[in-house]
Amino acid sequence: MTRLAYVNGRYVNHSAGMVHIEDRGYQFADGVYEVVMVYQNRLVDEKGHLDRLESSLAHIKLPMPMSRRSIQLVMRHLIAQNRLDHGLLYIQVTRGVAPRDHKFPTNVKPALVMTTKKTRISSVNQEKGVKVVSVPDIRWKRCDIKSISLLPNILAKQQAAENSAFEAWFLDEQGMVTEGTSSNSWIISNNKVITRKASSAILNGITRQTLLEIISKHKLHLEERSFSLQEAMKASEAFLTSSSAFVIPVCQIDNIKISDGTPGIFTKNLLNYYRSAILDLPQIS
Amino acid sequence: MTRLAYVNGRYVNHSAGMVHIEDRGYQFADGVYEVVMVYQNRLVDEKGHLDRLESSLAHIKLPMPMSRRSIQLVMRHLIAQNRLDHGLLYIQVTRGVAPRDHKFPTNVKPALVMTTKKTRISSVNQEKGVKVVSVPDIRWKRCDIKSISLLPNILAKQQAAENSAFEAWFLDEQGMVTEGTSSNSWIISNNKVITRKASSAILNGITRQTLLEIISKHKLHLEERSFSLQEAMKASEAFLTSSSAFVIPVCQIDNIKISDGTPGIFTKNLLNYYRSAILDLPQIS
Repeated sequence: MTRLAYVNGRYVNHSAGMVHIEDRGYQFADGVYEVVMVYQNRLVDEKGHLDRLESSLAHIKLPMPMSRRSIQLVMRHLIAQNRLDHGLLYIQVTRGVAPRDHKFPTNVKPALVMTTKKTRISSVNQEKGVKVVSVPDIRWKRCDIKSISLLPNILAKQQAAENSAFEAWFLDEQGMVTEGTSSNSWIISNNKVITRKASSAILNGITRQTLLEIISKHKLHLEERSFSLQEAMKASEAFLTSSSAFVIPVCQIDNIKISDGTPGIFTKNLLNYYRSAILDLPQIS
Repeated sequence: MTRLAYVNGRYVNHSAGMVHIEDRGYQFADGVYEVVMVYQNRLVDEKGHLDRLESSLAHIKLPMPMSRRSIQLVMRHLIAQNRLDHGLLYIQVTRGVAPRDHKFPTNVKPALVMTTKKTRISSVNQEKGVKVVSVPDIRWKRCDIKSISLLPNILAKQQAAENSAFEAWFLDEQGMVTEGTSSNSWIISNNKVITRKASSAILNGITRQTLLEIISKHKLHLEERSFSLQEAMKASEAFLTSSSAFVIPVCQIDNIKISDGTPGIFTKNLLNYYRSAILDLPQIS
């Protein structure tokens, strides 16, 4: 079966999906993106992702490349063509192709690329939990924008990989955890769920937002506040959330085990609640 | 005449220069670049640019895509083919094409793209000077790496353009000038040349380095130290340096004129010294 990609108005073989060398995404990281999970033939949190795409674009003063309805049609067509019942849909919008010059070009059409990838969430990670390492947060000050300007994130993720960890947690100058390189950070302490307040210091994850709704619905205790690396290490449980991983228990931070080093019951319950919420979503027609 | 670009081993028409949508430069800003001026058939500060390219690559743990000698041959071939006697040579190296995943891929060849652009330095800017605006420095903390992760730079440059300014000067949290979006910042005060010390807060510009040598050679007074926006506004002269602009007088910062709002003699002399140094370089054979 041919895997297709959508590139600036055309469906092409994934391997033949090309953009110009002067696409501003390539020369300036002048663009934003979204990753949407497709789970058992359901588009997870579609509205949240498209809302955030609009918001990220507005922050960098880019118009939507086409209407939301048209984007949704392309998403569905690509998912159908690629028979994606489990996997990731990737959407990227850049400021388009123009002779290299820092300031915005005029009369240039934004570029829109979509790809899909068949993949399943690692049940091993969900069941056994993962290790994270702490790294200084050296990113820019607008982490609320989901930009493709990701060099610090990939350098930190690589550092995690080299230390046999699944993720790196960024620490701000006060030693407080901001978030992971591609996930939000959470701890459980005294039966309270604690996660940093959304601000320009973190990306307000869509899975984070959905989980907050679930926490509210189940009347669990929540504290939206910063927590330090030390507090996380002493927490009864820790976990991370992302669109591509849902909820994953964190059982070790640097060389410190969280509690007995196995996933806690609170985290397991949250994952189950989250899974149920997703299965309540309608299937892609 | 056909304008050629060099793209991963091939010379192609500039308009047909394409990279894959999963080039990590496009999805993660996982790459670095250099811009080298070609001035009256001379490659300006070639060694400095290639040294810095190697250093930027080392910082992000990427090998050189080919030997320095091979890169130099491609540079010369492209310049000759495109008959570039005045203009800019752009070199970009990214981590290559791989399925999207934050951590480094294995066994992937780095991507190398080179383009040229015919252009001349604006003599109006050099003679009349320019305006700059001040903006908060919200960039990441490794500005010494010449990465393509440039979103904050282009947003600031756009803000400058919208305020009829040539450049934006970044201010750190203490109100000290770090540098411009694509240039280094300098002032003259009490007959001393003042510019911020190289650190991870600024890119150590090649033109900056050459000018420091010239300042030393001419036994001018130099202070490598931070200066505040207020000090810059009260300075007798101000200017900026970049590979594509050499030395440009700054005659206004925000709404404040520097001295009488015209370029000062110190800056003019530095520009003349710099031009002379360049004309001492050998022509491209």
